[in-house]
Amino acid sequence: MAPITNGRHIFNEIPSGYPIPGKTTVYDGSQTIDVDTVPLNGGFLLKTLVLSIDPYLRGRMRDPSKPSYNTAFELGKPLANYGVGLVLRSENADVKAGVHLYGIFPFEEYTIQQDANAFKVVDNKHNLPWSVYVGAAGMPGQTAYTAWKKYADAKKGETAFVTTGAGAVGSLVIQLAKRDGLKVIASAGSDEKVKFMKELGADVAFNYKTTNTLQVLEKEGPIDVYWDNVGGETLEAALEAAATNARFIECGMISGYNSQPYGVKNLMHIVAKSIKIYGFIVGKILPEFRESFYSEVPSMLAKGELKFQEDITNGLEHVGEAILAVQKGTNTGKSVIVVAEQ
Amino acid sequence: MAPITNGRHIFNEIPSGYPIPGKTTVYDGSQTIDVDTVPLNGGFLLKTLVLSIDPYLRGRMRDPSKPSYNTAFELGKPLANYGVGLVLRSENADVKAGVHLYGIFPFEEYTIQQDANAFKVVDNKHNLPWSVYVGAAGMPGQTAYTAWKKYADAKKGETAFVTTGAGAVGSLVIQLAKRDGLKVIASAGSDEKVKFMKELGADVAFNYKTTNTLQVLEKEGPIDVYWDNVGGETLEAALEAAATNARFIECGMISGYNSQPYGVKNLMHIVAKSIKIYGFIVGKILPEFRESFYSEVPSMLAKGELKFQEDITNGLEHVGEAILAVQKGTNTGKSVIVVAEQ
Repeated sequence: MAPITNGRHIFNEIPSGYPIPGKTTVYDGSQTIDVDTVPLNGGFLLKTLVLSIDPYLRGRMRDPSKPSYNTAFELGKPLANYGVGLVLRSENADVKAGVHLYGIFPFEEYTIQQDANAFKVVDNKHNLPWSVYVGAAGMPGQTAYTAWKKYADAKKGETAFVTTGAGAVGSLVIQLAKRDGLKVIASAGSDEKVKFMKELGADVAFNYKTTNTLQVLEKEGPIDVYWDNVGGETLEAALEAAATNARFIECGMISGYNSQPYGVKNLMHIVAKSIKIYGFIVGKILPEFRESFYSEVPSMLAKGELKFQEDITNGLEHVGEAILAVQKGTNTGKSVIVVAEQ
Repeated sequence: MAPITNGRHIFNEIPSGYPIPGKTTVYDGSQTIDVDTVPLNGGFLLKTLVLSIDPYLRGRMRDPSKPSYNTAFELGKPLANYGVGLVLRSENADVKAGVHLYGIFPFEEYTIQQDANAFKVVDNKHNLPWSVYVGAAGMPGQTAYTAWKKYADAKKGETAFVTTGAGAVGSLVIQLAKRDGLKVIASAGSDEKVKFMKELGADVAFNYKTTNTLQVLEKEGPIDVYWDNVGGETLEAALEAAATNARFIECGMISGYNSQPYGVKNLMHIVAKSIKIYGFIVGKILPEFRESFYSEVPSMLAKGELKFQEDITNGLEHVGEAILAVQKGTNTGKSVIVVAEQ
């Protein structure tokens, strides 16, 4: 077969505020690949099917001299994130052509990889779309599931407050909290998302852009469990409305990713209310829960016992717009790039 | 015996900044008592020997409509805090004249109390001064001991950062951390206190008023355990210099007690570094550790295995100055009011 285009989406410039499509990241269609003959050097060739767009990617678009829990993206190289791909060819005895692998993929249509241990075979026995394996059955689902199990210490009749409740993580947290018998207050940034959060079972769902968060929490709280995806003023409101012995699960603080973070002034509530705050990175706590996650969650998703919503973007050309939408919260549901159908 | 003066120290006015001696609180020498004949109505008469002055008292000098973990002081009534007193007379079968009791005392020379369960008999078998039972062998000592045991998860070779390291709580935390084999960085607000912290075993001790906290932590850290008595910009520096999986023990935030609290902007480190933050109130976790505390700590204090320093003020007239000194940090060592020698 003649060489074909191997489209890529490149990290082009460190952003100072929101990432700008075509400037912060750019599509590059200049590379080609001959999938039949490209040398594998003992590795395996993957055809990228789906790629995940997540809020945390903003943190990787930084000056590499600033240390963090994840590595900075390299300028001029493709972005990278969780994806699912089909093995086209393999020279690695542990990887068979025809299987689907989940792991961190560079943002390119075809990729040659060497480390079989960096990927996990997707045993899709419930016939879920591949996109689900980077969403509710992938890292965001694992984030919700593992941290809720590990830190919520949920007791029936308690009250939880979930931010970005219509998002990939928050939408699952709402459902896990309801399954544990909690009253759930959930917030998001549009009336359409509010409607979705109510469908998920949230007892109180509100649009934080048109409704005062603290007033809702003071009326419907106090809060025993706070799931924080936003930080800033919302975290301040949650501290204000926290119950004694509240647990705060710190998953992200997107309010500060694209601008100077807000200074939280009422941290003394941590002392006065004996609040426990748990920062975590899903990759570090996943090993403890991986088995139960994969045995429970894909099946519940397939049966509709856990609901999810996706926001599909087709083609690597549109990665920049998808990234910006996630940072601004204008997407609805888990953002996924579909690179190829199969 | 003829009636004698029963001096008291009264909460007079809610302060807006630092409490002002003679204005926020005032001495009142107008009351008298006949200790031989005053009716006890089934209760017991205590002669107050020592009273504790602690940072947290500032929080009780508030508008009572603001809820908190402790009750607000009542205007026109005596202040109250931990103390030790001698039982002069008793009509309660559970309380014997001649014993010494530890508990919450109103700030008055003589007090009639009804609830024996609110006090604990001081079994002073190591012949420590009574003042020690409101300090290193009292609430501040319990604060250091219980929260360190419960939350530090200290591992030999790790690094701890202790604020107000010359104070009643911090000075014990330094010693507990050293006993657990940690490198200890400690801060306080005078060169005299720095000297004391070095005597306690701190590996690095510095005056935060003349030395940049973040620079010290960046050089000597990263920090695995942070003992926070101050909050604000120091907490921000500790977050900046925290190690992955650091534990933050939130004991107090005195930097915000007498002025608008500082807004902490880098809370995203909680997520990125998987930091765990533990707010606590000593009274709530004490039951789990009370027995081991009283069996270990007074003996160690008597033998000099744990060192402590006291700042003694004689007489209820000078309570206001002692309170202000503790809020400003101009005292050196545990602040105690000696009301009567025996």
